[in-house]
Amino acid sequence: MANYKVIFHVDKSSVAKWKLVLVNIENIITEFGNDIDIELLANAEGIGLLYKTPNHFKETIMRLSSMGVQFALCANSLKQQNLTKEFFLDMATVVPSGVGELVLKQSAGWAYIKP
Amino acid sequence: MANYKVIFHVDKSSVAKWKLVLVNIENIITEFGNDIDIELLANAEGIGLLYKTPNHFKETIMRLSSMGVQFALCANSLKQQNLTKEFFLDMATVVPSGVGELVLKQSAGWAYIKP
Amino acid sequence: MANYKVIFHVDKSSVAKWKLVLVNIENIITEFGNDIDIELLANAEGIGLLYKTPNHFKETIMRLSSMGVQFALCANSLKQQNLTKEFFLDMATVVPSGVGELVLKQSAGWAYIKP
Repeated sequence: MANYKVIFHVDKSSVAKWKLVLVNIENIITEFGNDIDIELLANAEGIGLLYKTPNHFKETIMRLSSMGVQFALCANSLKQQNLTKEFFLDMATVVPSGVGELVLKQSAGWAYIKP
Repeated sequence: MANYKVIFHVDKSSVAKWKLVLVNIENIITEFGNDIDIELLANAEGIGLLYKTPNHFKETIMRLSSMGVQFALCANSLKQQNLTKEFFLDMATVVPSGVGELVLKQSAGWAYIKP
Repeated sequence: MANYKVIFHVDKSSVAKWKLVLVNIENIITEFGNDIDIELLANAEGIGLLYKTPNHFKETIMRLSSMGVQFALCANSLKQQNLTKEFFLDMATVVPSGVGELVLKQSAGWAYIKP
């Protein structure tokens, strides 16, 4: 079991931010290897990072997913934007509430990073 | 006593951010009910969210307050902007330092969210 | 030994943000005195806050450093921007990964603040 756990919070539609958070995750993996659990939680405008198409970061996201990184979408944000799961990458999971997920993870000892 | 606790940090004057954080709080309440303590801490430009007037979010804030959400203002930010408590909504409380409050709460096990 | 610990995360090049985080740190010191350990972690565009020159905040940073505040730079960010340690203020230290540092500190009980 991993000794470290971290959840990244993405709530903006900025391409620069999206690129940054993915690089952040790659750096974390390089440093901690298998000793860390990583989740990216997207809510509000941040859910665009996980669109099925268009998605300029699809290959990176799929690679990170294959390395064990979890990708979670806020159900409230989908509803507010009239979107359903089918518009998003297959590996993404939907959680009832993005901020609820951030609370649950931190309460379980996960570190929080907001790029 | 609530099993979960979360503090939201607001330090920008963006209306979009303000709307987002209030929706975030509503979603948290929907998910956790009475099992969570919630505080919104406003400092720097974020204190504008709690102005007595003008305040487009007054009704939402009063409703959330009646449901137990705490609203805190940073005394340093008030001083820096030459404002006194009377300019702000009655339910808002003033803490000595916004960042100090964020440290105290996290040290006591509260989750931190920066929308 | 200090009872409180906090790490500030700076990843933008905004002068307003830099000014804010330094004021935040001064306010924390005023409130907690010696009872808190403080670190500022700069990554991505945030590393500019610690340039040797130009640096409009040099005096403030040196004063805070003399009071025990730690300033850390992300090695990955330096590499990505083709910069070496010599371009940065002497008191700054380099950590292997900025986000890794944020994980390690939070795992050790440090509070996290993203101004």
